[in-house]
Amino acid sequence: MALINENYLKLPGNYLFSEIARRVEQFKAEHPKADMIRLGIGDVTRPLPGAVIEAMKKAVDEMGRPETFRGYGPEQGYDFLAKKIIENDLTPRGIEAAVDEVFVSDGAKSDTANFQELFGLNNIFAVTDPVYPVYVDSNVMAGRTGVHKDGKFDRVVYLPCTEENGMKPALPSARVDMIYLCFPNNPTGMTLSREELKKWVDHARENRSIILFDAAYEAFIREDGVPHSIFEIEGAREVAVEFRSFSKTAGFTGTRCAYTIVPKEVKVYDAKGEGYSLNSLWLRRQTTKFNGVSYPVQAAAAAVYSEEGKKQVKELIDYYMENARIIREGLRKAGYKVFGGVNAPYIWMKTPDQLSSWDFFDRLMRTANVVGTPGAGFGANGEGYFRLTAFGTRENTIEALERIATKM
Amino acid sequence: MALINENYLKLPGNYLFSEIARRVEQFKAEHPKADMIRLGIGDVTRPLPGAVIEAMKKAVDEMGRPETFRGYGPEQGYDFLAKKIIENDLTPRGIEAAVDEVFVSDGAKSDTANFQELFGLNNIFAVTDPVYPVYVDSNVMAGRTGVHKDGKFDRVVYLPCTEENGMKPALPSARVDMIYLCFPNNPTGMTLSREELKKWVDHARENRSIILFDAAYEAFIREDGVPHSIFEIEGAREVAVEFRSFSKTAGFTGTRCAYTIVPKEVKVYDAKGEGYSLNSLWLRRQTTKFNGVSYPVQAAAAAVYSEEGKKQVKELIDYYMENARIIREGLRKAGYKVFGGVNAPYIWMKTPDQLSSWDFFDRLMRTANVVGTPGAGFGANGEGYFRLTAFGTRENTIEALERIATKM
Repeated sequence: MALINENYLKLPGNYLFSEIARRVEQFKAEHPKADMIRLGIGDVTRPLPGAVIEAMKKAVDEMGRPETFRGYGPEQGYDFLAKKIIENDLTPRGIEAAVDEVFVSDGAKSDTANFQELFGLNNIFAVTDPVYPVYVDSNVMAGRTGVHKDGKFDRVVYLPCTEENGMKPALPSARVDMIYLCFPNNPTGMTLSREELKKWVDHARENRSIILFDAAYEAFIREDGVPHSIFEIEGAREVAVEFRSFSKTAGFTGTRCAYTIVPKEVKVYDAKGEGYSLNSLWLRRQTTKFNGVSYPVQAAAAAVYSEEGKKQVKELIDYYMENARIIREGLRKAGYKVFGGVNAPYIWMKTPDQLSSWDFFDRLMRTANVVGTPGAGFGANGEGYFRLTAFGTRENTIEALERIATKM
Repeated sequence: MALINENYLKLPGNYLFSEIARRVEQFKAEHPKADMIRLGIGDVTRPLPGAVIEAMKKAVDEMGRPETFRGYGPEQGYDFLAKKIIENDLTPRGIEAAVDEVFVSDGAKSDTANFQELFGLNNIFAVTDPVYPVYVDSNVMAGRTGVHKDGKFDRVVYLPCTEENGMKPALPSARVDMIYLCFPNNPTGMTLSREELKKWVDHARENRSIILFDAAYEAFIREDGVPHSIFEIEGAREVAVEFRSFSKTAGFTGTRCAYTIVPKEVKVYDAKGEGYSLNSLWLRRQTTKFNGVSYPVQAAAAAVYSEEGKKQVKELIDYYMENARIIREGLRKAGYKVFGGVNAPYIWMKTPDQLSSWDFFDRLMRTANVVGTPGAGFGANGEGYFRLTAFGTRENTIEALERIATKM
């Protein structure tokens, strides 16, 4: 008799975004004429840059001719893309990385979800609270947690990000072996300074733990002194892996390309204390369970680094960050307490009148016809908060803030 | 201290294709003028069909305009592709499937490797021997096996495919909960008849086990009476999941698209015997750990089902199957015992003079400068066999067989 992976039964039934969709559908059914503006989900709205389109079409044409056709590529991605990544994203920031330390994939979601496979089930992992749910859920499915109770899983170390600590988590006091950090943060939009991040790297080095660093939003950093990569911190190559993505920077959410940097120095240990290279293990994982990213998609990603591509991507990011400014300043002017939105496309606001995050969701939808994301969906400490994103159109963003200012 | 997933340490170090590459490189270094022909790896060589190229470029253009741009798609694939799959691949063969039973993915390799996650670690799985290594290795990594010894893993039920049983595995005598079957088979190229496959479905129904059916090569079936899908068998919707791919049929090895059919009736059980829908579990897995296939790739796959596309794909398959005929008949004429190649792009030959499969590899490379795949790489029962593939160019295929006939 085929038996279920019972860890799946620990997952709570209701997903955040399907519950949002359900409430929106119901409201629209009751108010068919309401002009809804969605600033909830973290999906981009601007088209792919022209340089990317041209490169991708050229690559598709290559696939149609016998002399330039490409079959299976390397599971870890083509060298031509890894080299461009290193030359443009890493070297200019003083980060050293070899071509075989860059693993191209179909998404940071897949990579952050799959990477935990390399670790034993007896590791203890830490996440910030609030947090991007994939880190936790993928570990639940693997069996690295206990049961779910009162919004938390047993055997998980939650690191609260609160108004009191400025949304910056404190170092864990108990033992942790794997630490998920995402900065600029989803959902709070907040960042760590170089000094703050260094404390994490030092802590990991002392404890031989590993930092799984999600840098998917690094391109939105506007301020100096905010590290774009954990590898800007001394010693990070010994203890960190970094996930990056073309999704939000170059509009690849529907095109699918990302990469993960796994330095050869990072080690995991067996029961006897012998170390094994995470880089070799991830290569083994990817060659066994993945078959590489579509060639035209990799060619498209490489075009992000052309002169034209870089200019166009910068325009995209400027566009979204102007939206972020409009939301942040608009909310503040309307009297709300706001985090993020300076170095990130996310704005994390405190709900007024001590409303629960779902109650504020309903009020905002009913009064202003604006849809956002209730903070409670990101963890217990997200309760009382609300996320808006800068990925809408300019017109909708302005109109949404106008409604919040006048109607709420 | 971060601990390794010690199951990874059970994997033997040497990979089949890297050892082949090593030997070929060494030979080429010693014989720089040798004109090598590769009929080893299962990768296609013909370009993508014209209809696919056109559709993909059109979809890329859509991604460049704000009004047609697409961000995140459904993790399980777009309905437009699932509908075409059902209309063209399933309905004409009398197979019922709903749109939400078809899960589009980036490859049958990913799906066959990831699907085992839904099952408890205490399940016993069976594989044929020889076998596509991904089924076994993904289960080893998950911890569903014991150690590796004498070419086999503990706790795995191997079903020998031998000359005596005509490469058709017998039903397992011991308990098994998960059964991997691949027909037309990689590497043997052999198929099961409807009656033979029915025995497996009946066996699974009696034991509430689940058949993980890999139908990646169904498009190469030429003979009547050979099922293209396990769902042509009565009762299979209760016990089977089927993996399919655009890789070999439409030349998508470098473009990446596949799909998996998970009927809503298939159930896995908890310790108390309560059943859970595999379809819901796979949806939960994919929505948590995957972000869907690139939109232009899905649009390209849909074009496989256009009138033009179908004609072009048929030409592709005819081309490869003519290669298969040339290899099969050429080998037979040269006195070799041959399996497969009638309903599959793989030809499985017995090595002559009781040579080991690696010894024959060396002899074929040195004498005829032809590279194939040693059967031992597919399992203990692959020893004494050798795989050639029909995916080369016509010219190379003819030349390779000419050399085998005259030089060996």
